[in-house]
Amino acid sequence: MSHEKYSSVIEALHECMEACNHCYTSCLQEENVKEMAECIRLDRECADICAFLEQSLTRDTPYVKELAQLCVKACRDCGDECAKHNHDHCQKCAEACQRCADECEKLVL
Amino acid sequence: MSHEKYSSVIEALHECMEACNHCYTSCLQEENVKEMAECIRLDRECADICAFLEQSLTRDTPYVKELAQLCVKACRDCGDECAKHNHDHCQKCAEACQRCADECEKLVL
Amino acid sequence: MSHEKYSSVIEALHECMEACNHCYTSCLQEENVKEMAECIRLDRECADICAFLEQSLTRDTPYVKELAQLCVKACRDCGDECAKHNHDHCQKCAEACQRCADECEKLVL
Amino acid sequence: MSHEKYSSVIEALHECMEACNHCYTSCLQEENVKEMAECIRLDRECADICAFLEQSLTRDTPYVKELAQLCVKACRDCGDECAKHNHDHCQKCAEACQRCADECEKLVL
Repeated sequence: MSHEKYSSVIEALHECMEACNHCYTSCLQEENVKEMAECIRLDRECADICAFLEQSLTRDTPYVKELAQLCVKACRDCGDECAKHNHDHCQKCAEACQRCADECEKLVL
Repeated sequence: MSHEKYSSVIEALHECMEACNHCYTSCLQEENVKEMAECIRLDRECADICAFLEQSLTRDTPYVKELAQLCVKACRDCGDECAKHNHDHCQKCAEACQRCADECEKLVL
Repeated sequence: MSHEKYSSVIEALHECMEACNHCYTSCLQEENVKEMAECIRLDRECADICAFLEQSLTRDTPYVKELAQLCVKACRDCGDECAKHNHDHCQKCAEACQRCADECEKLVL
Repeated sequence: MSHEKYSSVIEALHECMEACNHCYTSCLQEENVKEMAECIRLDRECADICAFLEQSLTRDTPYVKELAQLCVKACRDCGDECAKHNHDHCQKCAEACQRCADECEKLVL
């Protein structure tokens, strides 16, 4: 079963998608939303790519490596941007992104 | 945090999406694939709708009720179709679908 | 062919998704991004729902009415919000949303 | 506007997604569905990847090259598989896939 073979990366992808979407909706409600614009944009990109890879893995996609490579990049970009901001949701998202990137890197090798 | 408020339904949606996609890929490899055509089709519909609602909930969508209502229907249809087939993946998928429909019904009320 | 049967609504959905995503990225770059927060949020919801319905129609989903009903609501909400703002991308998005809602309403009847 | 900059590839992606999903639902209704299993599986992969790239382009994703590279691969695989089958929907899908791969290749360079 592909969802068992990939269970640890699927969990990381799921947590990253949640953290990104939570960060996205929270940023939109912050006072300094203007400074959060890039964070908002990368949160959405990262959440969508994580969700796409997550579902693809559960159906045993032939494109694991390509999707994982893309996901590593999106997670690192989003994680680096989030790390710049002090909001709790940004700091948590940064961690979830880096952890997810680490997990996805294992699929690329 | 919306992903905490909705944690039990998100878990059910996730498990249903996994079960549907596993059933989908498994049905495509069965000897009697012709008899599984409707199961394959509904597996994909259900997996996509569950994945969509799952991500929507994590970003606090304003369309919870409408999406949940749709998801109940897709889960019941897929669960009823899967229950007709003896393959282990179909039986497990049927259970995951009905459980997910039960969880989603709570969001409709 | 389902994509021929649904060609006019598919075109409206596609244009609405494009207008919503263009409005979304443009709003994030506006000076008054804080006032655009709800517009940004509804743009994403509407774009995702339109894209989902669009793809579902091309594979002849059994859930046309339910998805169309959801889409009408998302388009009306997004169109009403966009109409409040003078940015060109908001005004164009408002039009695309209302046109798409009108097309989707035909699928609900 | 990103959807104007990318208009020819967006059109090719849209047509490919439609052709893949039409081929997918048609294959599921064929007498020889067992022989079509790989075609069905690749149709779905390709349709989902095309739809994802299409929407990403309309919101000016920073991951154009990575997504386009992935899409070229999915389109070539699906196009090659479809070309093996005589069904009209397979032949048309094969053409749409190769045309879409050609368009996406321009984004990779």
